[in-house]
Amino acid sequence: MSRVQELIGEVKRPPFDIMRAAHVELVVRDLDASLHFYDELLGMIVTERTAEAAYLRGWEEYLHHSLVLRVGDEPAIDHVSFRVAGDADLDVIAADFERRGCPVREHTGEPGQGRAIRVQDPLGFPLEFFHDMDRVDSNTQAFHLQRGAPILRFDHLNFHSPDPEAAFRFWQELGFRATEYISTDGEDEKLTGAWLRRKPTVHDVALTAGTGPRLHHFAMWLAEPSSVLRVCDQLAAGGWVEAIERGPGRHGVSNAFFVYLRDPDGHRIELYTCDYYTGDPDHPPKRWSVTDPRCRSFWGTRAPDRWYEESSVVLDLDGRVVETRAAGVDERTEIMA
Amino acid sequence: MSRVQELIGEVKRPPFDIMRAAHVELVVRDLDASLHFYDELLGMIVTERTAEAAYLRGWEEYLHHSLVLRVGDEPAIDHVSFRVAGDADLDVIAADFERRGCPVREHTGEPGQGRAIRVQDPLGFPLEFFHDMDRVDSNTQAFHLQRGAPILRFDHLNFHSPDPEAAFRFWQELGFRATEYISTDGEDEKLTGAWLRRKPTVHDVALTAGTGPRLHHFAMWLAEPSSVLRVCDQLAAGGWVEAIERGPGRHGVSNAFFVYLRDPDGHRIELYTCDYYTGDPDHPPKRWSVTDPRCRSFWGTRAPDRWYEESSVVLDLDGRVVETRAAGVDERTEIMA
Amino acid sequence: MSRVQELIGEVKRPPFDIMRAAHVELVVRDLDASLHFYDELLGMIVTERTAEAAYLRGWEEYLHHSLVLRVGDEPAIDHVSFRVAGDADLDVIAADFERRGCPVREHTGEPGQGRAIRVQDPLGFPLEFFHDMDRVDSNTQAFHLQRGAPILRFDHLNFHSPDPEAAFRFWQELGFRATEYISTDGEDEKLTGAWLRRKPTVHDVALTAGTGPRLHHFAMWLAEPSSVLRVCDQLAAGGWVEAIERGPGRHGVSNAFFVYLRDPDGHRIELYTCDYYTGDPDHPPKRWSVTDPRCRSFWGTRAPDRWYEESSVVLDLDGRVVETRAAGVDERTEIMA
Amino acid sequence: MSRVQELIGEVKRPPFDIMRAAHVELVVRDLDASLHFYDELLGMIVTERTAEAAYLRGWEEYLHHSLVLRVGDEPAIDHVSFRVAGDADLDVIAADFERRGCPVREHTGEPGQGRAIRVQDPLGFPLEFFHDMDRVDSNTQAFHLQRGAPILRFDHLNFHSPDPEAAFRFWQELGFRATEYISTDGEDEKLTGAWLRRKPTVHDVALTAGTGPRLHHFAMWLAEPSSVLRVCDQLAAGGWVEAIERGPGRHGVSNAFFVYLRDPDGHRIELYTCDYYTGDPDHPPKRWSVTDPRCRSFWGTRAPDRWYEESSVVLDLDGRVVETRAAGVDERTEIMA
Repeated sequence: MSRVQELIGEVKRPPFDIMRAAHVELVVRDLDASLHFYDELLGMIVTERTAEAAYLRGWEEYLHHSLVLRVGDEPAIDHVSFRVAGDADLDVIAADFERRGCPVREHTGEPGQGRAIRVQDPLGFPLEFFHDMDRVDSNTQAFHLQRGAPILRFDHLNFHSPDPEAAFRFWQELGFRATEYISTDGEDEKLTGAWLRRKPTVHDVALTAGTGPRLHHFAMWLAEPSSVLRVCDQLAAGGWVEAIERGPGRHGVSNAFFVYLRDPDGHRIELYTCDYYTGDPDHPPKRWSVTDPRCRSFWGTRAPDRWYEESSVVLDLDGRVVETRAAGVDERTEIMA
Repeated sequence: MSRVQELIGEVKRPPFDIMRAAHVELVVRDLDASLHFYDELLGMIVTERTAEAAYLRGWEEYLHHSLVLRVGDEPAIDHVSFRVAGDADLDVIAADFERRGCPVREHTGEPGQGRAIRVQDPLGFPLEFFHDMDRVDSNTQAFHLQRGAPILRFDHLNFHSPDPEAAFRFWQELGFRATEYISTDGEDEKLTGAWLRRKPTVHDVALTAGTGPRLHHFAMWLAEPSSVLRVCDQLAAGGWVEAIERGPGRHGVSNAFFVYLRDPDGHRIELYTCDYYTGDPDHPPKRWSVTDPRCRSFWGTRAPDRWYEESSVVLDLDGRVVETRAAGVDERTEIMA
Repeated sequence: MSRVQELIGEVKRPPFDIMRAAHVELVVRDLDASLHFYDELLGMIVTERTAEAAYLRGWEEYLHHSLVLRVGDEPAIDHVSFRVAGDADLDVIAADFERRGCPVREHTGEPGQGRAIRVQDPLGFPLEFFHDMDRVDSNTQAFHLQRGAPILRFDHLNFHSPDPEAAFRFWQELGFRATEYISTDGEDEKLTGAWLRRKPTVHDVALTAGTGPRLHHFAMWLAEPSSVLRVCDQLAAGGWVEAIERGPGRHGVSNAFFVYLRDPDGHRIELYTCDYYTGDPDHPPKRWSVTDPRCRSFWGTRAPDRWYEESSVVLDLDGRVVETRAAGVDERTEIMA
Repeated sequence: MSRVQELIGEVKRPPFDIMRAAHVELVVRDLDASLHFYDELLGMIVTERTAEAAYLRGWEEYLHHSLVLRVGDEPAIDHVSFRVAGDADLDVIAADFERRGCPVREHTGEPGQGRAIRVQDPLGFPLEFFHDMDRVDSNTQAFHLQRGAPILRFDHLNFHSPDPEAAFRFWQELGFRATEYISTDGEDEKLTGAWLRRKPTVHDVALTAGTGPRLHHFAMWLAEPSSVLRVCDQLAAGGWVEAIERGPGRHGVSNAFFVYLRDPDGHRIELYTCDYYTGDPDHPPKRWSVTDPRCRSFWGTRAPDRWYEESSVVLDLDGRVVETRAAGVDERTEIMA
């Protein structure tokens, strides 16, 4: 059994309960342009807007926000956020990250949100944990008002990581379980991608080998495949054909139907639907060989190079861009090998 | 071979070329209410509006209108309209109806439309024939602006006829060919419904046994079945659940995916998609037994009684409601028989 | 706050962890006929077959079975089954039901399944709890082999209960949480339907007012709405139009897309897809007034009477049919009121 | 008005009536392999099979065949075939091609088909014209038997032509009308693609600038976009991921939903659905600038080079491969310009 095989099968049970990935805060250069994209074109609901930020949610969501757009000089990820089962989990998590030697801060200023813990994790990413958030109306069946995709709810985060195995080990320690992964063939098996979950879907976080720490993309859930096709038609018709980066198509990993878009600042958003239930504790992780042309796009369509190379830089707790380093493995090279 | 069988197989070639069913003019009591329904809820484009009428078209259409809403005291059908291949066809058609002893008038006042011939046909229906109509922009790919269904183009008309065989013979003489029909079993075969076409789809006109002359419904074409589902979601969400009368479902006859709606005045509109090509001259008409539960709804769902019993009265050329008489055959009774 | 309101909001935390509804065992009169229906027409995989029973699963499932068909003289429900988080939960559950005075037995004979606890619950239903089950291959992406719907996985159970509030209280005590419910208007609010979940979807069990204890239906998950339409086309084409009882359509409750079918023995199966995530602990239960025509079918389509009146009798632990009694409330009457 | 503009607007009315593109005969190296692809994977019906050829049709078709697979040493197109309105048209067409100095032969040996005229057209393509063909059963609603896409009917042919304008002029003379076209910008407007129709859809024949005479692809009609997605899933699952060459996606030209596949001999087939009605005589041809990234794939996805470069050689009336020459214009270069 290879090192990767041993790694994948482990289950850790930390003394706190992270329920799911919950939102992301993007730094954008032009708030109106971003709102045009996320609110009008893709179809989200603006819960609250200030001079420098907007707080949006999907049509099924009843919490204050699952996307924050905040004005800044350069595009970046301010933080990604996870909801924990109760407020008490926050202190346990803070202690855990302090033990790891990571920067840890309590944060209370996010509109609509209660007390939160923000940390810079060992891989350099700005993570937030919270439980309390204001409840607002969900609009699941307001079909007559919906537009764009429409976006129903936050689904997951995908991190660009120079060392996917180190990243995998870290998320496993936080209680995340592997559902699928891509690795190289042969004795020296190397991980090039991994999908881990807390909520019982394919993932809350995915790890993609690449220059990092950077956020490869965040993903929102749509109702069904025809929703993905419709939003592509609308983007192309409305002058946003350049925003369509990859897809639509069926994923090999996750079996989801997807399209990747680039927003006005180049942040990548995936529209995602129809993955599967993973909630039973004996759910077996599924391996894909990196040489299988179907692992990322089940129909074999090659991703454009920029899908592998470009992603969003992240900020540290003081708002400075975190330095990145290149990955030791490149999935594209391995596919050819 | 029964009388119905002989009738169905005949092909007449009159000396004029009716291309297709093209539009309908509805008398409505409240123009704003009707526009809310057809423009905002179902998704059509208003080409022109006056104080007392509105002229709408679907997103694929490049002619001025395929639906006219005109204000009046009582809901009715002012006329149904067919496009002919050239202006010269109009005189030949006028002569044909004069020969039949039908009221015939030339009409030039319809906005966006050139010279037209209006007749009251032998069955009592107010028919219009025209060729010239103003060309406007089509909007097939303006997906970012489309709403509701959206409605793409006019498809067909369905007439409530007390004597379906007489009606069938009349439309056959105008050059229409049968594609499908429903008839009773046994030696005394009776026609209870027939579908006839000029353009190479399943129909431009359909005949349903019932109290008439009345218009059972007109039908608009949508892109695909998911469009039909989406507009039902939107209608129900927006407070128009009562408008959904029958379906959505698959038709037996025509194989189309459909839903029937009732507009604010009770006029019935069908949203219709995915029938088949019938353009070859040897295309064989398809018979359905009236006892086959799948002939109208392929999935066997029984139509509500009002779908059989209610429909829109029609006006004569002087604007008076044409008297109706009951049909000699009731499909519902025959089904039970 | 009405009694119903108080009831709905409560959350119980019993000392055991039921993960989800997992399977049902149907008594059928003709195993070949049933297999034709579930395997060939609807599309399931037969994991194992003996002379008197067959064990089937959906294409996404990796456990031995989610449906058992067992030959018997009269159609009935042998038991419905729930998976618990670990084997240790079984003893705690057994003790809980013994404390309630219910018949409790350990059962080990079900092929592919480990030790199980079977009980007759206070409402008369035959429940089974298990953790261990043989792992077999999942076939999520074997699209080239799939047929019928295809059926992907087990989703939920719906019980016909003469006293929905008593039933609700019972399931709440087992740790299930309300996500949606239907109740009468006015001061004397009465529950006519309730949906409760363990896994984070709309439900694992639903309760419908009606003569019981009987199983109203069990439900299997499909990929998307177009899968529901396709299986209806196939059933009608293949001579099974009578099997289509209600729908397809959009549910008000759950927002799912559905169709109800009746199998060769009259057992009702729902094909179900596209509900929503309910996993956060503060997820607010949604109330529907019984007078809202959209609560069961969002598009307002009335259910046939047999959907309300007919359902499957259940067996006690000795295989005898459990006597039923009528419900004190009839949703149909309340709708009219 | 540019030369291209003048050309596009013309309508010719030759003294014969070609109704529509009807079938294609492919030379394949391994008949079993080809049948596996077209019959089992894509879903067609085999009407007749001999030792060296198979005759297939789609599920909506009632004529003997719309695809012929004939065994030969090297992949090629034996002929492409058009149905004319009546047998008398054949003699007029034969005379027309003789007048042009083209090789013309009467052919009677094609199973299921009556007398046909075969010609090598001025561009080098082997065309066949026929009217009589045996009638067999259509299977439009045999949903329970359908597999693969399924393929419903023949739709169109696309020719690789070194001189698209000469090709356009030729097809126009046969009575075909332009519906859409792609041309270069600026004063020296050059045609790089054109779509022409007889039946009232977007096209029966399309012309693509490229090395020719070669057949770029033939296209079969599917029911709806979800059919296209499903067949991709099935191909990838069944080991045929390499067959998927381009798409699925929305076309700019035609607005159709499509995917291009390569069969076991490299012949290209398009699965195609949801274009629009073009039957009125004043239907305006639509121009696309070759620089519009949306003209071929509305979502902007770039075609792989092989889609531009590879296509099927054609045979002359004696079965020898027709020599090809390169095109004077390359759409890919023009896009960059």
